[in-house]
Amino acid sequence: MVVARKINRFVKQGSFIRKMFDEGVELKMKYGTQNVFDFSLGNPNLEPPEALKKRLKSLVEEDIPGMHMYMPNAGYPETRAFVAQELNQSQGLELTQQEIVMTCGAGGALNVIFRTVLNPGDEVVIPAPLFVEYIYYVDNAGGVAKIIKSHEDFSLDLEALDRAINKKTRVVLINSPNNPTGKIYDEESIRQLSSILLKKGKKYGREIFLVSDEPYRDIVYDERSVPSVISLYPFSLIATSYSKSLSVPGERIGYIAVNPEMKDRKKIIEGLVFCNRILGFVNAPALMQRVVSGLSGVHVDVEAYRRKRDLLCDGLLSAGYSLTRPEGAFYLFLKTPISDDVLFTDMLRQKRILVVPGSGFRCPGYVRIAYCVDDATITGAMEGFKAALSQSRQS
Amino acid sequence: MVVARKINRFVKQGSFIRKMFDEGVELKMKYGTQNVFDFSLGNPNLEPPEALKKRLKSLVEEDIPGMHMYMPNAGYPETRAFVAQELNQSQGLELTQQEIVMTCGAGGALNVIFRTVLNPGDEVVIPAPLFVEYIYYVDNAGGVAKIIKSHEDFSLDLEALDRAINKKTRVVLINSPNNPTGKIYDEESIRQLSSILLKKGKKYGREIFLVSDEPYRDIVYDERSVPSVISLYPFSLIATSYSKSLSVPGERIGYIAVNPEMKDRKKIIEGLVFCNRILGFVNAPALMQRVVSGLSGVHVDVEAYRRKRDLLCDGLLSAGYSLTRPEGAFYLFLKTPISDDVLFTDMLRQKRILVVPGSGFRCPGYVRIAYCVDDATITGAMEGFKAALSQSRQS
Repeated sequence: MVVARKINRFVKQGSFIRKMFDEGVELKMKYGTQNVFDFSLGNPNLEPPEALKKRLKSLVEEDIPGMHMYMPNAGYPETRAFVAQELNQSQGLELTQQEIVMTCGAGGALNVIFRTVLNPGDEVVIPAPLFVEYIYYVDNAGGVAKIIKSHEDFSLDLEALDRAINKKTRVVLINSPNNPTGKIYDEESIRQLSSILLKKGKKYGREIFLVSDEPYRDIVYDERSVPSVISLYPFSLIATSYSKSLSVPGERIGYIAVNPEMKDRKKIIEGLVFCNRILGFVNAPALMQRVVSGLSGVHVDVEAYRRKRDLLCDGLLSAGYSLTRPEGAFYLFLKTPISDDVLFTDMLRQKRILVVPGSGFRCPGYVRIAYCVDDATITGAMEGFKAALSQSRQS
Repeated sequence: MVVARKINRFVKQGSFIRKMFDEGVELKMKYGTQNVFDFSLGNPNLEPPEALKKRLKSLVEEDIPGMHMYMPNAGYPETRAFVAQELNQSQGLELTQQEIVMTCGAGGALNVIFRTVLNPGDEVVIPAPLFVEYIYYVDNAGGVAKIIKSHEDFSLDLEALDRAINKKTRVVLINSPNNPTGKIYDEESIRQLSSILLKKGKKYGREIFLVSDEPYRDIVYDERSVPSVISLYPFSLIATSYSKSLSVPGERIGYIAVNPEMKDRKKIIEGLVFCNRILGFVNAPALMQRVVSGLSGVHVDVEAYRRKRDLLCDGLLSAGYSLTRPEGAFYLFLKTPISDDVLFTDMLRQKRILVVPGSGFRCPGYVRIAYCVDDATITGAMEGFKAALSQSRQS
């Protein structure tokens, strides 16, 4: 076999989603892109903010000597200082640039964190539904992902978390606002999680890290906000990216923030910087580091996503679906009218609507609808959603 | 321990190089940057070619909708097609875009390749001296690096290679033009290597991949050229980056090219694209993919590096050193006048000259001098080089 056994198995496991995408492409070729309602990808449809475009243009015009060369593996000191200051202002923290490591997006950040802290066989507890790449990220570092259920309203099941943590647990990974549910874990649940982790850490005589993947932090609705894990738990790290808040997912720019209160944090940071290097990232892309560091308080038009959320949710509600309106991000995790989410995804595809079955997020019985799309895609799909619902009631 | 045991060990192992860099920083603070002759880093001093700057400006001005969004994990089809065409023209190959995967530099490319093909315990044979990160890259994927010696003139020791290959060997990794020696492996040695690999592959009933890391391919002197591994061995892959040829190492842009003659190449490519995703790279940075794809035959001023090579080599020869003039890249691997290369590095540092000991490349008795620096750094250091030589003769 030319490919490593494990990778071969992983690729095969993921093949049903790939097959789905292939069928989507076929559908678009057959009916034209504008006649296919594609809600399958979390690829933002909003352009980056004007401030970003302006800054990019001005940096490229300025053409600072050496601006495309290597810099320290942790990133430009000025960029790191800027990120620290932004976090301090928005979350009331006291970070310095020392606690910031610039990364190739949140995917890069998580891989760097896991490689830094996981010993072989260490467990990472992750609530479902979850972004399935997490499982691979953990495996890359020799760890084992332990998936636990959430409550029906997608909030953290703290009892399940408590039960799942044992002497092998090294990390609890949360994602809030959540992909695929749009749920924000409230401050009280993070507090309770924190006390569970402190209690368990003491019991097993090891640090249990809380890693918060939060690329959707700025995309929240109805005046909600996302609690700060760094204020609530000492062994916490933020992994995040500008992909969604600035609509630049292709540019691979994000960072890790380490709790300044963490014991031995210098060791951790040294490990993170080293792993950023040896995993082949080397450093976050140079030009984009400069771009983001000038953009204080800038993010995409959240109100536009809020309108899309309501357009989608109101439409589905009047079509007869029941749902919980997402609190943030740009995904609706819709309970399927039949229990077989893969079959329902097929039924929607027959109406030229593309979504991802909940099984792909380890949570069957739902589909994920990414509403970071044109309004016309949302309104255009409503007839198909209606038809699929009545069809599923007959079946 | 907060950091994983293995990472803690790795960081400790690398601490003497870090200590050296820290001392270099101190030296610069004490004497001023212009009075320290820093040859320690392979960070190009030449600015990117004007054509690159022009293209970057024009792309940013054009501001194509969606240009910062996700694209397929393998990269833009147009970029992949462009890369294939450039390789075909320069090396007489018949690649299509299918065989190209855009990556976050060569470091990303190598990590993706190793993760795709290595089973736990598989061996990767690498000739020394070598870029020491290779050892970590192999380890990241659960493989084992097997270092073998080269000939005194830094050419491949094919007998040592033959002996090193066993039933666990999965990859032979070469780097030509070589970091740290500047050696180019000639066509005859690649041919012989190819027949060894075919013979051994048959004997052990498995494919042995030849991976050629060649970011310095365009930086060669005296009308030399680098043989094409893809023309010479079926199970070959190129891992490379634009970091050195276009002077953009901070931007993390490179690619993998897969031999179109390789058996089961579709499986390999599928694995590479999958691993590009799950290792957290996701895709090569979007804007830089567009930048490089418009630059046919463009590279930095190689003649400038040739002049620097000669300025350095002529200077050291008249100072009394003996050396082999490098054939490519921008490193001189200089035999130290005393056998202890770490001690000689210290002696140079006392003259405010920073180099890396050969031990850091698993080849003691040498130092690496990266001459991608201002001419003034080279001429300014000559007195110190002379003094260190006479000092070492007295010791």
